[in-house]
Amino acid sequence: MNRGYFITFEGPDGAGKSTQIEYLKEYLDQRGLDSVFTREPGGTRISEQIRDMLLDKENTDMSARTEALLYAASRAQLVEKVIQPALDQGKIVVSDRYFDSSIAYQGFGRDLGPKVLQVNKFAVKDLEPDLTFLMMISPDDVRSRLDQENLDRLESEDLEFKKKVLEGFESVAEEFRFRVRVIDATLSKEEIRDKIIQEIEWHFKKRGI
Amino acid sequence: MNRGYFITFEGPDGAGKSTQIEYLKEYLDQRGLDSVFTREPGGTRISEQIRDMLLDKENTDMSARTEALLYAASRAQLVEKVIQPALDQGKIVVSDRYFDSSIAYQGFGRDLGPKVLQVNKFAVKDLEPDLTFLMMISPDDVRSRLDQENLDRLESEDLEFKKKVLEGFESVAEEFRFRVRVIDATLSKEEIRDKIIQEIEWHFKKRGI
Repeated sequence: MNRGYFITFEGPDGAGKSTQIEYLKEYLDQRGLDSVFTREPGGTRISEQIRDMLLDKENTDMSARTEALLYAASRAQLVEKVIQPALDQGKIVVSDRYFDSSIAYQGFGRDLGPKVLQVNKFAVKDLEPDLTFLMMISPDDVRSRLDQENLDRLESEDLEFKKKVLEGFESVAEEFRFRVRVIDATLSKEEIRDKIIQEIEWHFKKRGI
Repeated sequence: MNRGYFITFEGPDGAGKSTQIEYLKEYLDQRGLDSVFTREPGGTRISEQIRDMLLDKENTDMSARTEALLYAASRAQLVEKVIQPALDQGKIVVSDRYFDSSIAYQGFGRDLGPKVLQVNKFAVKDLEPDLTFLMMISPDDVRSRLDQENLDRLESEDLEFKKKVLEGFESVAEEFRFRVRVIDATLSKEEIRDKIIQEIEWHFKKRGI
């Protein structure tokens, strides 16, 4: 049996990932390909319990390392129970976020560094995506706002965090350049859709899918 | 301000850790030393939420990696919010289990290997105990039962797991020999108490506690 194909979507919130995932679902359905869609954190009963802890507004005193480890725990369950079995059955798996988000948000945003990748490789048993679409906004936009505008402490902390997350995604694009396609999120959604489908068709053809 | 002193108790269930921790508490109180006692998993609100997930009988389909990462997440929170602050205030911290248990149970018992230690070092920001009492039963006792008795599949799986956990603790004693004192758990509880107090007095004296 053919091993399946694993596609992830990454990028900051609001970059348009969900819309593109919808388009991709339509495309895969039209082609009659068997596919599984997941989102992170969540996707299994245990992962949803972890998601509730992560999103619980009372858990504001959660340490950055605890947060990173909970994301990894949720991901471990999703890989073992959903993603890997689907790939073993030759299916196309599409995930809204995967460990690149942890590198960007926890590794860079929370300053936990490269060990976040080690922890995640353990979590997912070294399962990497075949192809990652990184919907990207330039950190320069955030940088110039930080420099120019009059921001209060919370606003500038928030912007500082966003800037670090974007720098984290830039580093992901560099480190995993063989699987990551950077998409300019400022293009129209139709232009982005066409780029993504074109890229996928090229890879599927190579793989005989 | 003096940095405090961090003592952990390790070993399989039923080896008598709780009794010895009670004795130690009496001793530290008598000496008027400021101490904090914690148990794993748990010890903070978030760690207790994680504990509930780990002990939830409905979560039987939890993957071994998820389990290991949840223990590490709970430990990360306990270290950052309780153990490290107490040590920074010069207190004696005593913990019923710490990451050696993860090496034994998840690393050896669940066959996840040495990466469990890496993950835990990340979780606790490399905070190692100053002194660990490992209440030990010989794996040979388990081995001979496995060889001799007529066991059904579940019983022998259970014994096999226990044997691997004990081998894990033996490996902890070897790898961290400078901080780990192995205690023969078959001795009387008074004999064990005297050994432990003697050892602690020697270390406290060296440290000027």
